[in-house]
Amino acid sequence: MENTVSIYNTASRTKEVFQPLNPPFVGLYVCGPTVYGDAHLGHARPAVTFDLVYRYLKHIGYKVRYVRNITDVGHLENDADEGEDKIGKKARLEQLEPMEVVHYYTQRYHKDMDLLNVLSPNIEPHASGHIIEQIDLIKRIIDNGYAYEKNGSVYFDVLKYSKDYNYGKLSGRVLEDLIANTRTLEGQDEKENSFDFALWKKAQPEHIMRWPSPWSEGFPGWHLECSAMSARYLGNQFDIHGGGMDLMFPHHESEIAQSVAAHKEEPVRYWMHNNMITINGQKMGKSLGNFITLEELFGGTHKALEKAYSPMTIRFFILQAQYRSTLDFSNDALMAAEKGLDRLLKAHTLIGSLKTGENSTSDIASIRKNCYEAMNDDFNSPMVIANLFEGVRIINSIYNNLETITGEDLALLKETFDTFVTEILGLIPDETLAGKNEKLAGLMEMVIDLRKQARAAKDFATSDRIRDELSQIGILLKDSREGTTWEIEK
Amino acid sequence: MENTVSIYNTASRTKEVFQPLNPPFVGLYVCGPTVYGDAHLGHARPAVTFDLVYRYLKHIGYKVRYVRNITDVGHLENDADEGEDKIGKKARLEQLEPMEVVHYYTQRYHKDMDLLNVLSPNIEPHASGHIIEQIDLIKRIIDNGYAYEKNGSVYFDVLKYSKDYNYGKLSGRVLEDLIANTRTLEGQDEKENSFDFALWKKAQPEHIMRWPSPWSEGFPGWHLECSAMSARYLGNQFDIHGGGMDLMFPHHESEIAQSVAAHKEEPVRYWMHNNMITINGQKMGKSLGNFITLEELFGGTHKALEKAYSPMTIRFFILQAQYRSTLDFSNDALMAAEKGLDRLLKAHTLIGSLKTGENSTSDIASIRKNCYEAMNDDFNSPMVIANLFEGVRIINSIYNNLETITGEDLALLKETFDTFVTEILGLIPDETLAGKNEKLAGLMEMVIDLRKQARAAKDFATSDRIRDELSQIGILLKDSREGTTWEIEK
Repeated sequence: MENTVSIYNTASRTKEVFQPLNPPFVGLYVCGPTVYGDAHLGHARPAVTFDLVYRYLKHIGYKVRYVRNITDVGHLENDADEGEDKIGKKARLEQLEPMEVVHYYTQRYHKDMDLLNVLSPNIEPHASGHIIEQIDLIKRIIDNGYAYEKNGSVYFDVLKYSKDYNYGKLSGRVLEDLIANTRTLEGQDEKENSFDFALWKKAQPEHIMRWPSPWSEGFPGWHLECSAMSARYLGNQFDIHGGGMDLMFPHHESEIAQSVAAHKEEPVRYWMHNNMITINGQKMGKSLGNFITLEELFGGTHKALEKAYSPMTIRFFILQAQYRSTLDFSNDALMAAEKGLDRLLKAHTLIGSLKTGENSTSDIASIRKNCYEAMNDDFNSPMVIANLFEGVRIINSIYNNLETITGEDLALLKETFDTFVTEILGLIPDETLAGKNEKLAGLMEMVIDLRKQARAAKDFATSDRIRDELSQIGILLKDSREGTTWEIEK
Repeated sequence: MENTVSIYNTASRTKEVFQPLNPPFVGLYVCGPTVYGDAHLGHARPAVTFDLVYRYLKHIGYKVRYVRNITDVGHLENDADEGEDKIGKKARLEQLEPMEVVHYYTQRYHKDMDLLNVLSPNIEPHASGHIIEQIDLIKRIIDNGYAYEKNGSVYFDVLKYSKDYNYGKLSGRVLEDLIANTRTLEGQDEKENSFDFALWKKAQPEHIMRWPSPWSEGFPGWHLECSAMSARYLGNQFDIHGGGMDLMFPHHESEIAQSVAAHKEEPVRYWMHNNMITINGQKMGKSLGNFITLEELFGGTHKALEKAYSPMTIRFFILQAQYRSTLDFSNDALMAAEKGLDRLLKAHTLIGSLKTGENSTSDIASIRKNCYEAMNDDFNSPMVIANLFEGVRIINSIYNNLETITGEDLALLKETFDTFVTEILGLIPDETLAGKNEKLAGLMEMVIDLRKQARAAKDFATSDRIRDELSQIGILLKDSREGTTWEIEK
């Protein structure tokens, strides 16, 4: 491998040189969505972050098996094993079979990911499709003495586990603190300790999603699926596990405990966590009125938005920050990102029309080298972007005859932009992706101006002809005092 | 329900009035693809056929739950329980985890379906995600005495079942003929009779897709998944089961036997089978060199094709035949379909620009009525299309001032076309769907002509300006002796 990547491993709180278990193969597992509602800003960041990781590892020669799950059962409203199943509740409210809810929102999630140019993972396992693997895992944990059954439900025994292993090693939580902060258990609670978590829950009579098990008809606990499915597709130990920082505790901490309790082996070699997003400095939340879905963002239909922001603007905005920094969404910041992206993509297009000269006034090779170094340093995309903007400056200078470039350097510059802008950062014009057509808009601007020119010259034959032919194509012109606009006939 | 639909029930070989079990709810199950290769012509017909059924039943007021499965395990190379698992083999050849093969081809299948404007079903269950349900079904069948275990595999006992029920009732096969045509069983065969079929197969050591069961680590037989998943999502008895005629035996016949053996209840009330396709009169097959994938069809890249045929042309072509007729693909027939579709869609667009008069020279209401009657008569789409073409004739006549129409009738005509062309037949311009842009082409034709006109008038300022501005938009003009062409800059 020509490039050596350093990854900030949450488990060690340090940057470590990435050494996969079985190079050139890399196993990458990322926590995917619970599909009971539309994807929102909070989904976009991990998706884009690990898309960057996936794209770069592939680019430098690794054969990556990227697994991202779909949570379609077991995620309760309260993450601490209480309340209704999120999907079950949505299904009840909408009078649907839970799998109809799952299918509907999975499709919408995929559509949003396509718009963000997020590549599909290689395997997208559903929790409900791996009940057998999850039951098998529970059996192993019970056999090894780290879980107990109570009234048909099975709970992980955190206290017992903590005597042999370190529960809290990933998140830095200390068991003594967890104990100190624990409310007194009420009589009806099945758990021996409130920080124990469910591996299997006995289904209430009204619960539709249920499967037979040695303990009861029921369903698996939320943390279990990731342990079961990562082991199924990547092995008991694998290279990288990613997700949002909010999942570190209890979800990822519990994943480690489950896997170690079952297999007596650390499941994950490198833990990666993207930091959280805020909106105008605030946490996103339904009660704060700043809960913005991706569809609302792309359409500009949420009241907090001054305008629509295209999927590629959102992608660029996310990549402008290193994934371990917090990221604050605001109209100003998004508009700035929109402009920046536009400059970058225009310069990329311009490369093809640059003329070559006898020498180069800028050091192209070092831009390329800096981009690789930035990516090798824990996927530092803002540093890549800064270097690409040095390239943008050079491109514009050459275009304006203020600088020169050799043919060889021009080829290198093009290769650098193709590699980093398109392939690794995944930034391409929205219309290329969505099939919208900026060309049509540009063309209409020109045609309207040609018509105006004809009218000014009293060439009404031409101006009428333009209007008539446009109408035949299905494009309507609207003249007003402010000028002429157009729209496509419905 | 205002409309009463008659369905040709394969089980009774007659048209029957459709009466759902629990109106207005309708349960519809259709056999989906085995995802180990690209979708081909043989996949397009059932997909479009049952999309038509789904769209129409919804249109007339039913609440349809449409379930179409993804076969990702258990479908062996030889449909009679022999040979390698189709997905396992592909995975072995491509050195992938089988679920990578499944994910890859499922996505490509969805893409093709989107292009064909085939609506997604409400639930798309995977066979591998329902192993528990399948094991449960096998247990019931064994308990009821209609299956036997041999060396860790479980087979359905067709002879025993035939003593109590009618194996062959759907396909019309007679058990005595099956027995007479049976080769002598060789010693190593585990089946008691060669027409018995596998419910569970013990996995060979090299087999990756395997699950624990009471009989062995193994995998379910191919026919089982549809029985298990239709019961899971639609109940032990449900309304409509669809699929290609080639699936009638042994697949659907075995589904009935499994469900009856397990639940002592007929699973399906209306069996619908679309007829087969041929290519230039021949069956499609890899050995005949006429195996055409949808991607090849849409791109015109197969040697049997004289040109590319758009997805909507294929959809229209399929709908031009009643689903129970055979359908022969040929270049001539496809080109004719392309022209017909173009006429239909152009007329649909033209409705918006028709002028109204004091009376109507044609009977619009009867066109609408005929369309409903045709659909009510076993989804007779060619009859709908014939009536719509009568509408096309009228539209063109009115447009050319040869006929007149009242405002009321014009609204009715528009509603009829919107309903049947767009909503029920699902015919919309390809570019609307794929984001391609015919408008751009029309506009460029006009712009090139304006430039030619400017040059003829020696107005070189304008002609140069057009070229320059186009270049800035990213559109290049190429002048040659034959005239001017354009292309989008790469």
